[in-house]
Amino acid sequence: MRVGVLTGGGDCPGLNAVIRAVVRKGVGEYGYDFVGFRDGWKGPLEGVTTELGVPQVRGILPRGGTVLGSSRTNPFKVEGGVERIKANLADLGVDALVAIGGEDTLGVATKLGDLGVNVVGVPKTIDNDLNATDFTFGFDTAVNIAMEAIDRLHTTAESHHRVLVVEVMGRHAGWIALHAGMAGGANVVLIPEQPFDIEQVCAHVEARFEKQYAPIIVVSEGAVPRETEGEDGMTLVSGEKDAFGHVRLGGIGDRLAREIEDRTGKEARAVVLGHVQRGGTPTAFDRWLATRFGLHAIDAVHDGDFGTMMALRGTDIVRVPLIEGTGELKLVNPAQYAEAEVFFG
Amino acid sequence: MRVGVLTGGGDCPGLNAVIRAVVRKGVGEYGYDFVGFRDGWKGPLEGVTTELGVPQVRGILPRGGTVLGSSRTNPFKVEGGVERIKANLADLGVDALVAIGGEDTLGVATKLGDLGVNVVGVPKTIDNDLNATDFTFGFDTAVNIAMEAIDRLHTTAESHHRVLVVEVMGRHAGWIALHAGMAGGANVVLIPEQPFDIEQVCAHVEARFEKQYAPIIVVSEGAVPRETEGEDGMTLVSGEKDAFGHVRLGGIGDRLAREIEDRTGKEARAVVLGHVQRGGTPTAFDRWLATRFGLHAIDAVHDGDFGTMMALRGTDIVRVPLIEGTGELKLVNPAQYAEAEVFFG
Amino acid sequence: MRVGVLTGGGDCPGLNAVIRAVVRKGVGEYGYDFVGFRDGWKGPLEGVTTELGVPQVRGILPRGGTVLGSSRTNPFKVEGGVERIKANLADLGVDALVAIGGEDTLGVATKLGDLGVNVVGVPKTIDNDLNATDFTFGFDTAVNIAMEAIDRLHTTAESHHRVLVVEVMGRHAGWIALHAGMAGGANVVLIPEQPFDIEQVCAHVEARFEKQYAPIIVVSEGAVPRETEGEDGMTLVSGEKDAFGHVRLGGIGDRLAREIEDRTGKEARAVVLGHVQRGGTPTAFDRWLATRFGLHAIDAVHDGDFGTMMALRGTDIVRVPLIEGTGELKLVNPAQYAEAEVFFG
Amino acid sequence: MRVGVLTGGGDCPGLNAVIRAVVRKGVGEYGYDFVGFRDGWKGPLEGVTTELGVPQVRGILPRGGTVLGSSRTNPFKVEGGVERIKANLADLGVDALVAIGGEDTLGVATKLGDLGVNVVGVPKTIDNDLNATDFTFGFDTAVNIAMEAIDRLHTTAESHHRVLVVEVMGRHAGWIALHAGMAGGANVVLIPEQPFDIEQVCAHVEARFEKQYAPIIVVSEGAVPRETEGEDGMTLVSGEKDAFGHVRLGGIGDRLAREIEDRTGKEARAVVLGHVQRGGTPTAFDRWLATRFGLHAIDAVHDGDFGTMMALRGTDIVRVPLIEGTGELKLVNPAQYAEAEVFFG
Repeated sequence: MRVGVLTGGGDCPGLNAVIRAVVRKGVGEYGYDFVGFRDGWKGPLEGVTTELGVPQVRGILPRGGTVLGSSRTNPFKVEGGVERIKANLADLGVDALVAIGGEDTLGVATKLGDLGVNVVGVPKTIDNDLNATDFTFGFDTAVNIAMEAIDRLHTTAESHHRVLVVEVMGRHAGWIALHAGMAGGANVVLIPEQPFDIEQVCAHVEARFEKQYAPIIVVSEGAVPRETEGEDGMTLVSGEKDAFGHVRLGGIGDRLAREIEDRTGKEARAVVLGHVQRGGTPTAFDRWLATRFGLHAIDAVHDGDFGTMMALRGTDIVRVPLIEGTGELKLVNPAQYAEAEVFFG
Repeated sequence: MRVGVLTGGGDCPGLNAVIRAVVRKGVGEYGYDFVGFRDGWKGPLEGVTTELGVPQVRGILPRGGTVLGSSRTNPFKVEGGVERIKANLADLGVDALVAIGGEDTLGVATKLGDLGVNVVGVPKTIDNDLNATDFTFGFDTAVNIAMEAIDRLHTTAESHHRVLVVEVMGRHAGWIALHAGMAGGANVVLIPEQPFDIEQVCAHVEARFEKQYAPIIVVSEGAVPRETEGEDGMTLVSGEKDAFGHVRLGGIGDRLAREIEDRTGKEARAVVLGHVQRGGTPTAFDRWLATRFGLHAIDAVHDGDFGTMMALRGTDIVRVPLIEGTGELKLVNPAQYAEAEVFFG
Repeated sequence: MRVGVLTGGGDCPGLNAVIRAVVRKGVGEYGYDFVGFRDGWKGPLEGVTTELGVPQVRGILPRGGTVLGSSRTNPFKVEGGVERIKANLADLGVDALVAIGGEDTLGVATKLGDLGVNVVGVPKTIDNDLNATDFTFGFDTAVNIAMEAIDRLHTTAESHHRVLVVEVMGRHAGWIALHAGMAGGANVVLIPEQPFDIEQVCAHVEARFEKQYAPIIVVSEGAVPRETEGEDGMTLVSGEKDAFGHVRLGGIGDRLAREIEDRTGKEARAVVLGHVQRGGTPTAFDRWLATRFGLHAIDAVHDGDFGTMMALRGTDIVRVPLIEGTGELKLVNPAQYAEAEVFFG
Repeated sequence: MRVGVLTGGGDCPGLNAVIRAVVRKGVGEYGYDFVGFRDGWKGPLEGVTTELGVPQVRGILPRGGTVLGSSRTNPFKVEGGVERIKANLADLGVDALVAIGGEDTLGVATKLGDLGVNVVGVPKTIDNDLNATDFTFGFDTAVNIAMEAIDRLHTTAESHHRVLVVEVMGRHAGWIALHAGMAGGANVVLIPEQPFDIEQVCAHVEARFEKQYAPIIVVSEGAVPRETEGEDGMTLVSGEKDAFGHVRLGGIGDRLAREIEDRTGKEARAVVLGHVQRGGTPTAFDRWLATRFGLHAIDAVHDGDFGTMMALRGTDIVRVPLIEGTGELKLVNPAQYAEAEVFFG
């Protein structure tokens, strides 16, 4: 049995831990051979491979990123892409694929599965917005990095009587903001699922200063102001392009800081954590989850249980249909958001 | 409504986060008054209290330990203890108690509940060995500290061709060893649930050196050698007292290191992480879990749902009978241990 | 003897360690009383004080920020400011002041000293740009935070074949960029002292990709392109205001990332570390240096050696004239920069 | 020019940073070839080499340990050792050696230098006990690890009213204990240079409890009780062997904890940090210092300035005679110790 492995989409702490577990158990328990495909679906599409065995996965457990590289290549958008993949797999003698990635990568996996390719999936989303699983790896690392930044910012906020706005990842789902905000003791948490009222935010800011403390606001990159009759209540307009075609006011973090400053007269600063959240060594939780996803994925290959994807339920790893990796997003519901609201202001 | 809060047993990162959440929601949403009891059940027993309100919980979220102090006092072992507690609660006008602690503390809470005291419990065990809940707070912090130590020890093991034995917490359950060992890439993990064969351990050590790498062994403090006809296969005897009444060979970590050195001729060193694992700032996971336990505990008080304890199931906080906090231990089962065994040797 | 203490300017990890050491030694060894002044020179100017004794400094050693608060108030810019300070000090019975701050704060201290106020200074600049001392506290913490961010970004750069630009503090001096860049293994380091050639930067970027690695560029916030005949070689113009009066292209980090993207066709992203660098718990080096500055400052008060400032020379703390805290900046010289250049490309 | 590189003695964070800098500058600026010798002086003695060039040093900057391995082999204790080294160097065409190590490794280097071998040295001692240089790399990492452990232990000490004894590295010099103790806010620091009075230590413990706080004692592994007429005042005897030839009471940490418990009746626990202090990723200071030592070492080779060793003076790297790496130890002097004593009790 020869198994191909690939990683697609944005990088995420824990990818290497998955690869290592797949290979270690595949070689040690099942006697499989492995082929590493470079840069996501680009690898099988173009037949670009890299050696993958126990020596190649040695020492990678604590390392962020992916030793296989990544890309967003979609073979279904390439003329004859599927045929080329099938041909390349046949040429390389690859019997099964382990595909590690997010919605796009697993979407391709699902369709290839329907077309007869033997695929097992491992879900990856640093935003933790996948319905099928309690948690995805990488999320815990991102939340800890954001929390540590918030811990650090508290002292500056206090010493300078300043508002600090921390923009974290989360385009569609506010999980990172919610968890990091609760863990870091934020005074306001703004998420995409709950459009915010700028006046209410400013009221929290002022309430906080009245208690002689300085507020920290955690905001998902995808958070938006609530609209009333087409107006979102923000004076500063985002999304306009300047003469060079670049967006004028960066993200919601910058925009919010400026708006709060204008409205309350308090100094406000934005910190945009950006890529720091998705790099570097994974936390213990993420290494443990990613390792277990890998072990169970190769078991699924061994069982011939293709078209499945690994998921965490409680403390168990279960197999669910691969299609669930591409379904509806897991969003923060109002009751979950209400837990953070207890600490607002 | 006046609510008393106490923390009992060994300290655990996240205790302060629970206290803060109980008080913040209790004051902010329900308008309750609070009384802090000092040092576990000693507080209500002796009527030793401390002021507890929003100002007292400010800034404590990231801090380890417990602002209320702790002890192992058991009022049921004190003549007239229960009556004194009831009298003190009545004198202080305390209508309900939130008790945060482990098996012993919650055991007292259960019995007091049967005797008519209004108690809600929050479970605490850094060893994570409670059946009722997927995880307890403090565990994730301990695992991360142990993993970081293992990460550091890898380089020394490699550079000096030495065996390093890392002893972690876990008297009856091997969860910390299992998670930290898997996350840290240990070559052997030894836990209380699976008595080990010293010859097998030495075989792993030698197999590892044959691959030109140095082994890291993670061992729970409660791990023991397998016995065959009353013999445990270890040459060095533990548990003997010296002339001063002190145990001669420290813990299993020291003993194992010396035994491996004697048997394989390889230099071996033990590192006993000890109290470092239970102190200091909690991880994001532990702050989030502890905060949510606190929020739900005060909701239970509000609902008059006494005799219950908070538990994590998947990502939900649920209420279970308080008696479950004192029941059977959650142990590592053979299938879970087998996940770590993939990486042995 | 009654001693006043104040902290001025931007916050910096280690301020609390200085305050604690001043008070602990002042009370314990010399039997002094203390008065804390709030918010820099605003405190003595407006007579706003806070209790300051051993209980107030307990537990503050590991905490960032300053328990005394800070501001940029300059009493020499306030009508009758000096007289009001003198009057307030007399009213409060304050015999001497320990002023902890940067160029501005110590500039005021120097002038007040000339006017007969007994002042001892402790220098503070997170940028480490003070000639009189080998290092200032806070700098080591900032460098470690920046280095850890760079460590994390390496894996993302590699996995996505992306250029990552990390903007760090340093308006006039490039010490943080130089140290963090060398410690983090940056491929290019750009500092204010050495105007950069954008074409050369892009050549390094391309050279790096040719070796199949992705570049990390560390840039001081004050770094600027080299000008030739009034042209700085950058296509994108910075500093222009948009309709709301806000600067269009944020800092040099953003501008550089976009320019590199335009010129090389490689994806480039900027990470602006900002305030995270100056908050939170200090490193061991900063706690040790800040504590020693505090101990020596109170010794100087005891010796009546006013008009002096503490400085680190090798491993010794020495006293230098206060005026040295406000003199010429310590800049990165070409030989020091050349050490980092070894690793460019 | 072909240059050999070796690392000897105990491992130390920063060794890889030195190796990388030597090779990167040697190849990039001077066009040298390199040979890596395995396991200290064992490498040239037995002719065991490993490839060493730019690809081999890629990515090693943040990694602890040494990619070249280490040993304590002394060729002067091997029959014909020196001749074998000379012959091996000649066979391999090695013109010069960069030897990175402590007293023993540099002692060999010095003697070989006298015998005509071209050697440049880089000093390494995690204990920081070398007179020739302000600091050695690895020390700052060890101090930070110890400080973080102390930070964590404070909360346990407080919550349980317990004495915590932290044993850190330092056989002959107390630098790690002094710096970590000052940075961590220890209540007592005990170092080899200042034999301690156990009664005084217990008095500090009791004074601390009277203030309602729990003490943290930091002790160097080489600290000893003061002797009066042949008695050291400790009831518990150390150094005795048990039936298996193992020392009965571990190190000074364990012994001190038990003695304090016996004398004061307060619960006391020892934490022995051990190897964790010397492993893992170096701090920014250590990476910066180690990198600069490497850059200057290869410059010394280029200048033909053999028989020299790198040293830090203030912020400059200077060359000193190699013999200084093996001379008198740099010990903590009474004035330096007095700085920590301010905080005792």
